[in-house]
Amino acid sequence: MPKKVNASPFVHPRFQYDLENCGIKRALDVLGEKWTLLILREAVYGLRRFDDFARALKCGRGVLSSRLKTLVQANILEKRDYVEPGNRSRSEYQLTAKGRDLYPAMLALSQWSERWDLPKEGAAARVADKDTKRAVSVVMTSRIDIRNLTMDDILIRPGPGAKRLPG
Amino acid sequence: MPKKVNASPFVHPRFQYDLENCGIKRALDVLGEKWTLLILREAVYGLRRFDDFARALKCGRGVLSSRLKTLVQANILEKRDYVEPGNRSRSEYQLTAKGRDLYPAMLALSQWSERWDLPKEGAAARVADKDTKRAVSVVMTSRIDIRNLTMDDILIRPGPGAKRLPG
Repeated sequence: MPKKVNASPFVHPRFQYDLENCGIKRALDVLGEKWTLLILREAVYGLRRFDDFARALKCGRGVLSSRLKTLVQANILEKRDYVEPGNRSRSEYQLTAKGRDLYPAMLALSQWSERWDLPKEGAAARVADKDTKRAVSVVMTSRIDIRNLTMDDILIRPGPGAKRLPG
Repeated sequence: MPKKVNASPFVHPRFQYDLENCGIKRALDVLGEKWTLLILREAVYGLRRFDDFARALKCGRGVLSSRLKTLVQANILEKRDYVEPGNRSRSEYQLTAKGRDLYPAMLALSQWSERWDLPKEGAAARVADKDTKRAVSVVMTSRIDIRNLTMDDILIRPGPGAKRLPG
C-alpha cells in the first residue's frame, strides 16, 4: 500500500515573487524611520537651518546631521552654504523637486491619522487650494482628467488644533 | 550714548506653534519605522500568518512579534486565532478598516519612489481600478466630485518589475 503523502502545505502566492523592486520598499529604504519623515515635515513647514531643525526636533545633533546627509544623498534635500554678515559660513537645507513631491504622501499619512485619531482640538494644519480656496485632500482615483496639485498650488495654515506657544 | 542693541535674531514662525497635534507626527508615532510599514505592505499583499510575515520580512521573531502587537493595539491589524485540523491553535493578523485605509498613503509613497527611482525593469506592482480597469494613482486635489477609491475598488497585480522566484 503506498505510503500516505501529506498534502503540500499552502504557500501564499506572495512567495512566488521577490519584492525588492516594490516602490513601498524602495521608498522606505530612504525614509523608513521616524526622524527622516519628521525632518521633512519641518522642511515643509519652512525650516532650513541646522539649528532650527535641531530645536524643532529636539534630537541629538549627531542623529540630525546623519539623517540630513542621507536626505541630501537621496536628492530629497539640497545643502547650500550661506554667510550672514559678521558670521561664519553656515549650511541650510532646502527641499528639492523630489523632496517637494513627497508632500502628497505626507498629507495622506496626516489625513489618515486625522480620520481615525483626530485630536479633540481638531487638526493642527489646514491645507487649502490657493486657487479654489477649498480644502485639499489626497484621493485614490483612476480618473485621468484631474489636475494633480503640487506644493506650489497649496497653502498650509494653522488649523483649530494648532497650539500657539507663548512669546 | 545708548548701548547698541543687536537686532533680535530671526525666529522662524514655525516656532510659534507646538506641533504635537500634527497628523504627520501622530501617524509616525504608530508607523514611524521601517518594519511597521513593511509588515503592512505584506498584509496588503495578503499575508496573515505569523510564519508567513517572518519568512517574507526576514526579521527576527521577537521584533516581528513586538511590531505586530503595536499594530494590534493601534487597531490597524486584528488578531484572530484559528485551528487547522490536527494542529495547535495559531494566530493570524488581518487589516482592520483603519489598516486598509492606510493603503492610499502607502501607494503615494510607492508612486513617489517610482516617479524618481524607477527600477530598470519597471514597477513591481500595477494597481488598477476594478471598474474602469485603468491605472490607479494618488492625487492631491480640492475637487469634491471625485469618488475616493478604497482597497475594495482596486486590484493589485504583478508589474513588469516583479521578479518571479523559482519554484
